[in-house]
Amino acid sequence: MTVTVAGTATIAEKLDEGLAAVERVMLEATDSQVAVLRDASRHILGAGGKRIRPRLLLLAYMALGGRDLERVARPAAAIELMHTASVVHDDINDHGILRRGRPSVNAAWGRTFALLTGDFLFTAVYELMAPYGDLNEDLASAATALVEGETLQAVAVKDNDFSRAVYMRIIALKTAALFRAAGAIGAKLAGARPSEIEALSDFGFNLGLAFQIVDDILDLVADEERLGKTAGIDMDQGRGVAVALGADNGNGRAQAGDPLDAIKRGMLEGDTIDKARKQADLLVDVAVERLGALETSPATQALVELARLVVERES
Amino acid sequence: MTVTVAGTATIAEKLDEGLAAVERVMLEATDSQVAVLRDASRHILGAGGKRIRPRLLLLAYMALGGRDLERVARPAAAIELMHTASVVHDDINDHGILRRGRPSVNAAWGRTFALLTGDFLFTAVYELMAPYGDLNEDLASAATALVEGETLQAVAVKDNDFSRAVYMRIIALKTAALFRAAGAIGAKLAGARPSEIEALSDFGFNLGLAFQIVDDILDLVADEERLGKTAGIDMDQGRGVAVALGADNGNGRAQAGDPLDAIKRGMLEGDTIDKARKQADLLVDVAVERLGALETSPATQALVELARLVVERES
Repeated sequence: MTVTVAGTATIAEKLDEGLAAVERVMLEATDSQVAVLRDASRHILGAGGKRIRPRLLLLAYMALGGRDLERVARPAAAIELMHTASVVHDDINDHGILRRGRPSVNAAWGRTFALLTGDFLFTAVYELMAPYGDLNEDLASAATALVEGETLQAVAVKDNDFSRAVYMRIIALKTAALFRAAGAIGAKLAGARPSEIEALSDFGFNLGLAFQIVDDILDLVADEERLGKTAGIDMDQGRGVAVALGADNGNGRAQAGDPLDAIKRGMLEGDTIDKARKQADLLVDVAVERLGALETSPATQALVELARLVVERES
Repeated sequence: MTVTVAGTATIAEKLDEGLAAVERVMLEATDSQVAVLRDASRHILGAGGKRIRPRLLLLAYMALGGRDLERVARPAAAIELMHTASVVHDDINDHGILRRGRPSVNAAWGRTFALLTGDFLFTAVYELMAPYGDLNEDLASAATALVEGETLQAVAVKDNDFSRAVYMRIIALKTAALFRAAGAIGAKLAGARPSEIEALSDFGFNLGLAFQIVDDILDLVADEERLGKTAGIDMDQGRGVAVALGADNGNGRAQAGDPLDAIKRGMLEGDTIDKARKQADLLVDVAVERLGALETSPATQALVELARLVVERES
């Protein structure tokens, strides 16, 4: 089936159409003959989530004139599945019991099956992307970056060494690389010129950094119910992130060694959160600035809105 | 650098050349900027292992006239890394503390880093194979099968339901699919005809089944020192495998519910191990029979020897 963007549809309608195709691809790709893999995958996928990475990929594609939403749905689904795989493995390592408002796969199925479900989601990505040649290379290197970023984070927690520089490197690898790939792949699928591909790669990268900073702020300060996942999961990690976010290389209010509650109070009372949010705002401004390389269209407008939403969201 | 098979070199020399290239590719592919990923990957890779999957791929390639060992080293390395990734995750779930005569990654670095190292080895495969188009599809679907087989095994252990049929399905997915891919990819890279690709796929598949049966026998009966990995790791799993190997659908000597020691004694005293070995022999005969579709050469002879080695090995 080919879903073609109708000339008269609004961008929001086209985006919804594309996202519906992404959901279908993800359901097909996780239709394992092994019941527990299928059920656990659909449990986590069915819990929703913001689908921000496929949104980014679809809008990047549309911003450059791409019209075949079915063609782009497969890589967009692969990117969301890659993210989901990392989330499932994350919840093993961080003992997260709540995710997207549901029990995590780890909590519901136990560690062995959570590990295998994460592996399975990853092989689903691999299968989906196998035919894509150099687009596949973009996603593969983002996948490696993701794992490297998660690992650097675990190292930083273990060594209690969470400077601003370390934090930025972690989030660049674990989050921004995949956002970058979403922008690049969307642009490439639309047959974009190198300068346009670079612009959307940079847009994705900066947006990814901003997204993760906001995510970490929310993880520290939001209440669990609104967040839909276990908040402030790991005290060491939370403390580290707080130091990185709030304190310029450890000179600010929050200090490693403080109890997490004290850090949270300090951040809430002081201007720490404000400062971190301003960093995220700045990164979003940089991202939006890069869209100047493209012709303005409803799709580029939608990308700007997506970027604003990333920093303004409360969950 | 291109390593070309010299006309005068024996097959054994060519194979060694190819395997050396595989080792180089694996070292490069695991040269992460993140020290712990690099170190843990090289710890497990450096422990050796039989490299049977890359051997199979290289020989399949040579049997069909392929001569560019550097070209084939990359997918051969990817297949070994895929296997290694699954081994690292396996040792988390099975609490294996010894692997290839060294501490497992789980034992040496802990669960969090073992999980991430397995993920990293997997993304390394993904990166290595990204440019390979439809060969990539062969490996991607074998990767999914591997995870599905591991999962079915975990389900069988959990439910204590290890019939012969379940066992065969598990080993077909978790082991034989990757052996099959090794044969198919080697053949395809050599530009083989469809009938030749099928023959080498079947050779790999049947050899993979035999390999896993022998592996499971050795895991039950060999001593740890010779095996180089934690033997009879999981009593439930060992018991299940024993039932499947020794008892036609539970009618033989070994019964689920028996303590593992009793099962081992029963297998050692009775003809159970003999029967299981005969199954493996039969599968190897089937594999070798499929080589009849190819022109006989030193490389096909080497494949026959590889197959015999699989059932005759003692570790």
